[in-house]
Amino acid sequence: MGMLMTMQRDSQLSDPAAEVPPRPIRADGLWLDDLTVGQRFTSDTYELSAAEIVEFAARFDPQAFHLDPAAAKGTFFDGLVASGWHTAAITMRLVVRAFPVATGVVGAGTDVTWPSATVPGDVLHVAGIVEEIVPSRSRPGRAAVRVAHQTLNQNGEVRQKSVARIIAWNRPA
Amino acid sequence: MGMLMTMQRDSQLSDPAAEVPPRPIRADGLWLDDLTVGQRFTSDTYELSAAEIVEFAARFDPQAFHLDPAAAKGTFFDGLVASGWHTAAITMRLVVRAFPVATGVVGAGTDVTWPSATVPGDVLHVAGIVEEIVPSRSRPGRAAVRVAHQTLNQNGEVRQKSVARIIAWNRPA
Repeated sequence: MGMLMTMQRDSQLSDPAAEVPPRPIRADGLWLDDLTVGQRFTSDTYELSAAEIVEFAARFDPQAFHLDPAAAKGTFFDGLVASGWHTAAITMRLVVRAFPVATGVVGAGTDVTWPSATVPGDVLHVAGIVEEIVPSRSRPGRAAVRVAHQTLNQNGEVRQKSVARIIAWNRPA
Repeated sequence: MGMLMTMQRDSQLSDPAAEVPPRPIRADGLWLDDLTVGQRFTSDTYELSAAEIVEFAARFDPQAFHLDPAAAKGTFFDGLVASGWHTAAITMRLVVRAFPVATGVVGAGTDVTWPSATVPGDVLHVAGIVEEIVPSRSRPGRAAVRVAHQTLNQNGEVRQKSVARIIAWNRPA
C-alpha cells in the first residue's frame, strides 16, 4: 500500500475534503455518492442441490446432518440441511452482483443468524437495505455503511439474516 | 421432527428434569456435562494456497482482490486475499474437529469480524474458549453455549474473531 498511501497523503495536503479511494474493481459500480439510507436491492436467485450441500460440507463442515440424508435422521435437523456457512457464502455471491460497490464489497465484520436451515431444493435470493451511513471523521470522502440482508427461499422462508459493515468512498473527481 | 417431539414430551411428563437430546452424531463427542466456562481448545492447522483462495472466490465471492494477484494491485487490499467467508468456512472445519459437540456444532448465529485479511500461504488455526453457558429454563437438560474463536496464522496474526451461540444437551442417562 506504499504507493497508495503516498497518493492519499499528497491529496489530503492539497485538498483536505477528499481521500483518494482504492482503485475501483467495477467500472459501473456504486460509490458512496450513489448510496442512501433506506435504499433497497434484490438479488438474482441461486438454487441449491443436495449434491452441492454435501460437497461444501465435506470440505468445510463435515457433520452428519450436512453429509448424508440417512445419517441425518433423528439428529438435530432430522434431515439433510446446508451448513450455515454455505448459506452465508451463497449470500455473498448474490450480494456482490446485486450491490456492486465500485471499490468492492469489503466487510469489516458481520452479524449472522440462521432462523431456519437451508434445505435441498431451496431457491435462495437476498433482499438488502442500506440501514446507516456513517461518514468518517478522520478520512473525508469515506464512510462506513451498514447493510442488512435477508436470505429467503422461494416460499419467503428466511434462511439467514445478516448485518454487514462495509466501506465506501466518494466517486473520484 | 414429529417422532422426536413425541419422545421429548413423554420424557418430560415422566421426568421433568430431562429433555431427550437429538441423536448424537459422534460417539465420543462432548455433552453439556463436559463443558465448563473458561474451557479452551486449540485446533489443527490448515494451510491456504493462492489456488484455493481463487477457486473459492470464483464460486462465492468473485471480486478482483480475491481472484487475481495482478488485478488486486491498487485495490483496497492491494494484493490477493481470501474472502472473509472462506476464512469463516475454514474456521468451521477446524472447530468441528477440535470442539466435537456430541449432537453436532449447531449455531443459531454468530458475530464475525475480520481484523486482517487471510493471505496465500497462511497456516491457520483456531483458539476457542467457552465464554458462557446459559441453561434453558423451559427445556431442562439443554443450554445455550457461547464460544469465542480466534482464527490466527502462523505468526499469531488474527484473521478472524467470532462469537458463536451453540446448543448443547446433557448426556442421556
